[in-house]
Amino acid sequence: SNKVFADLPVTVFEAMSQLARDNDAINLGQGFPDDPGPEDIRRAAADAVLNGYNQYPSMIGLPELRQAISTHYAHWHGVQLDPMTEVMVTSGATEALASAILSVVEPGDEVIVFQPVYDSYLPIIRQAGGIPRLVRLEPPHWRITEESLRRVFNAKTKAIVFNNPLNPAAVVYPREDLELLARFCQEFDAVAICDEVWEHVTFDGLSHIPLITIPGMRDRTIKIGSAGKIFSLTGWKVGFVCAAPKLLRVAAKVHQFLAFTTAPNLQAAVAYGLGKSDDYFLQMRKDLARSRDRLAQGLSSIGFPVIRSQGTYFLTVDLSPLGLNETDEAFCKRIVTDYKVAAIPVSAFYEEEPVTSVVRFCFAKKDQTLDTALERLSDAV
Amino acid sequence: SNKVFADLPVTVFEAMSQLARDNDAINLGQGFPDDPGPEDIRRAAADAVLNGYNQYPSMIGLPELRQAISTHYAHWHGVQLDPMTEVMVTSGATEALASAILSVVEPGDEVIVFQPVYDSYLPIIRQAGGIPRLVRLEPPHWRITEESLRRVFNAKTKAIVFNNPLNPAAVVYPREDLELLARFCQEFDAVAICDEVWEHVTFDGLSHIPLITIPGMRDRTIKIGSAGKIFSLTGWKVGFVCAAPKLLRVAAKVHQFLAFTTAPNLQAAVAYGLGKSDDYFLQMRKDLARSRDRLAQGLSSIGFPVIRSQGTYFLTVDLSPLGLNETDEAFCKRIVTDYKVAAIPVSAFYEEEPVTSVVRFCFAKKDQTLDTALERLSDAV
Ligand SMILES: CSCCC(=O)C(=O)O
Ligand SMILES: CSCCC(=O)C(=O)O
Repeated sequence: SNKVFADLPVTVFEAMSQLARDNDAINLGQGFPDDPGPEDIRRAAADAVLNGYNQYPSMIGLPELRQAISTHYAHWHGVQLDPMTEVMVTSGATEALASAILSVVEPGDEVIVFQPVYDSYLPIIRQAGGIPRLVRLEPPHWRITEESLRRVFNAKTKAIVFNNPLNPAAVVYPREDLELLARFCQEFDAVAICDEVWEHVTFDGLSHIPLITIPGMRDRTIKIGSAGKIFSLTGWKVGFVCAAPKLLRVAAKVHQFLAFTTAPNLQAAVAYGLGKSDDYFLQMRKDLARSRDRLAQGLSSIGFPVIRSQGTYFLTVDLSPLGLNETDEAFCKRIVTDYKVAAIPVSAFYEEEPVTSVVRFCFAKKDQTLDTALERLSDAV
Repeated sequence: SNKVFADLPVTVFEAMSQLARDNDAINLGQGFPDDPGPEDIRRAAADAVLNGYNQYPSMIGLPELRQAISTHYAHWHGVQLDPMTEVMVTSGATEALASAILSVVEPGDEVIVFQPVYDSYLPIIRQAGGIPRLVRLEPPHWRITEESLRRVFNAKTKAIVFNNPLNPAAVVYPREDLELLARFCQEFDAVAICDEVWEHVTFDGLSHIPLITIPGMRDRTIKIGSAGKIFSLTGWKVGFVCAAPKLLRVAAKVHQFLAFTTAPNLQAAVAYGLGKSDDYFLQMRKDLARSRDRLAQGLSSIGFPVIRSQGTYFLTVDLSPLGLNETDEAFCKRIVTDYKVAAIPVSAFYEEEPVTSVVRFCFAKKDQTLDTALERLSDAV
């Protein structure tokens, strides 16, 4: 069997959710909300299932959804995307990432990734025959430096895979870091595969800046989004790929043989959702920021050193000042069994030189869920 | 960009559906029905969207669906599959095929495929670094011979990818051919990746025999199925992979990074559907056989030499006795523009030495659709 995959562990998210179930624990590990998701969008999906079309849609996605994606990004970020040649719908962002990476990377190509790294990137890069070059980011700011880029970019660099807002670090990168990245991508003629699934989940007035909007990046960026994250319907698995025609064309060839197409009923509902007013998105951010604050304050008050979350469903705590004498992994194993609360060790996002003192908690949960978790953790540190 | 994919054409199904739309033609090309699909199953999906769970399900699929798949195959084929370790849900059969092929095939491995070949197999085999070895099948019987297998099996053979019932040939393979294949797979220690998406669509009392049920094949077969095909809801993209734990385990590792998981609402509805009585499946076959007969008789009566369809949504005609002096491809282009009926040239399923005289029509359509198509084609040959 294929050595790229055979010995990989089950993803830390799945493994931790399983541990949560086994221990009857509150699951603040894997990133999903515990509410059912927006009712009107679910109703739109139900309507499409009952009255709409349930056969193969167009391979690159329902025309109305591609139009809605184009309109949405024009409105939010001023980027003009042709819905016929620059937008594709995929079966979730995971499939979007696989299609993008496999479309760009060939054997021997170097691909730059940033640790903490989402766990699908490296296996797919390796399956493509690519050679990952790792940039190590560190708490509490996780910033990108010129020096770190200078070490990895070279003539063999084919692409970067870049996640912003960054899961699990909960950082929303400032323009300065994006411009630095853009400068290197241009200098070394690299494609930027941008996992921007958390683009709408930003707090405190911070706005996500898509890398594709940075000057010089329009034609070398593959922008990936996720309706599951935007609408807190993580199971729907409706993702998007946006890129210049020459990049999208090849990603579509991969997509047609990885998944071919995506359920049209869910696509129709996402098209409806993307048309929601600004208020909807701003309210969603406010609601999530309130949950973030509730968990952050609660954790602080019981002694956890909380790192401020700028975006995503997550916040992190840095255990190092506590002198616990255990790794993040040991800590997570201990709290899921002893305190019945599941979290994710950030070291799972490192392939080498892990940061071993940071733990990620998901706050996209009901107040009561957060409060019970806090109660349970009250004497954990 | 990746040369395996960059220069591939858009799939013939998508291209022909586009031509059908452009020409305002009746689309008997791509395989999908023109009715909305079973209402009760769609209602079950709508219920799950409205009242059920819309967040990440288990990576290998909803437990209730894995159980339903196991029960279904035990009932229909007497095969016992452990729903915990031998069944996985995927985002359609295309993703199932990609996960299976990428889990088994490594650079330099030879993989045997049969022409006519479904168009996703070869690119994915090549992406895995595999070397396709082609067996050429021919109308009107498309049978597998010992001699043809002897030519391609060897010590480097890692796997076969085998489609039965065979699209586009509409053949349901008899036990004899399956036993021959099984003998070779065992002699050369090959894994059989079996695309059995048309398993329920068989006619005239013929039953599909899963290769996994042939003695010696239980532990070396990866069986792939499709709820979209079983329930005529082709857009749903819910597929299944069934295999012994040691094979399934690796396919799951690929799946987790190609798609991760599949919409739980649609999964729940498929679980409901698989529990339907035998009558439902037998009636579906009868209804489709009636449509097959309507199209076959109509085509015969206007002069098309029809090859009998044993299964799938398709029947084929062999143009060679007509002395038309044009290829299947030219014929299909001509009828979509001049007669406003789209069909699929079977030569598109060959990478080398194509059969160029056979055309595939989809009959999974309303009577009126078929009748109008027949009227339009009345002086096409
Ligand atoms: C695909 S499961 C993981 C979901 C997620 O983004 C996370 O928990 O980080
Ligand atoms: C995935 S589109 C093709 C559908 C199909 O099975 C066919 O038309 O042969």
